Amino acid sequence: MEQRLSLVTLGVGDLARARVFYEQGLGWSATSVVEGQVVFYQMNGMILGLFGRDDLVKDGNFTDTGASFSGITLAYNARSEAEVDAVMALAQKAGAVIRKPAEKVFWGGYSGYFLDLDGHPWEVAHNPFWEITKDGRMVIPQG
Amino acid sequence: MEQRLSLVTLGVGDLARARVFYEQGLGWSATSVVEGQVVFYQMNGMILGLFGRDDLVKDGNFTDTGASFSGITLAYNARSEAEVDAVMALAQKAGAVIRKPAEKVFWGGYSGYFLDLDGHPWEVAHNPFWEITKDGRMVIPQG
Repeated sequence: MEQRLSLVTLGVGDLARARVFYEQGLGWSATSVVEGQVVFYQMNGMILGLFGRDDLVKDGNFTDTGASFSGITLAYNARSEAEVDAVMALAQKAGAVIRKPAEKVFWGGYSGYFLDLDGHPWEVAHNPFWEITKDGRMVIPQG
Repeated sequence: MEQRLSLVTLGVGDLARARVFYEQGLGWSATSVVEGQVVFYQMNGMILGLFGRDDLVKDGNFTDTGASFSGITLAYNARSEAEVDAVMALAQKAGAVIRKPAEKVFWGGYSGYFLDLDGHPWEVAHNPFWEITKDGRMVIPQG
């Protein structure tokens, strides 16, 4: 098994509403759409999908307990503290719930959390110790 | 906001146990370790972290409902159906719960699901329509 993550899928209650949030709200562009069923976004070497939550439950044979936090968080690393503030403001304007306003954190960075319209948790952080390449790949410095 | 995902963090009940699963079980190598606190794995242009579940709850100001499915799935796309079978077998040997054995699926691929030791859901799939580059980036073909 290679050390890779290919796809993160977010189960959503209303696909059209979720698209408005990510596309009009956050400014993403859909790469592949199966109308009314699934939407894929090409990210930095991986893919993010939006899929009906009921469909996702069925697909994976899950039991949906309806919880909003299962112990997984997603993070968007910004290139500066100012970009963190801008992304948090953008998300809030698009209807996200601000779970934790951005602040200086103990590990030396600056970070906040918002919940998307389905309660999926996104951290928005500036980490001065990690590299973001021009084409958006995240790299942990060696050594 | 760029169209990127930087980091996926899995909250785990026992960091040492989780490391054994991912490193000895699945064969990954840790890139950065803060002993007893957090472990990061350099993936294909993004990073996967293991972090104490209680610490993650505190970090994001969450309420932990203890649920095992919040509507997020992670996927590893294999390069062949045989690799799907091999990865599912590897995960099971490492202690994962097989939620759905790999099978041909309606969209033309081949896919199964396992749960890691903390219940985080991983799909293992072969998708004949999507490209995996030699260096492991996932690409949706244009057009």
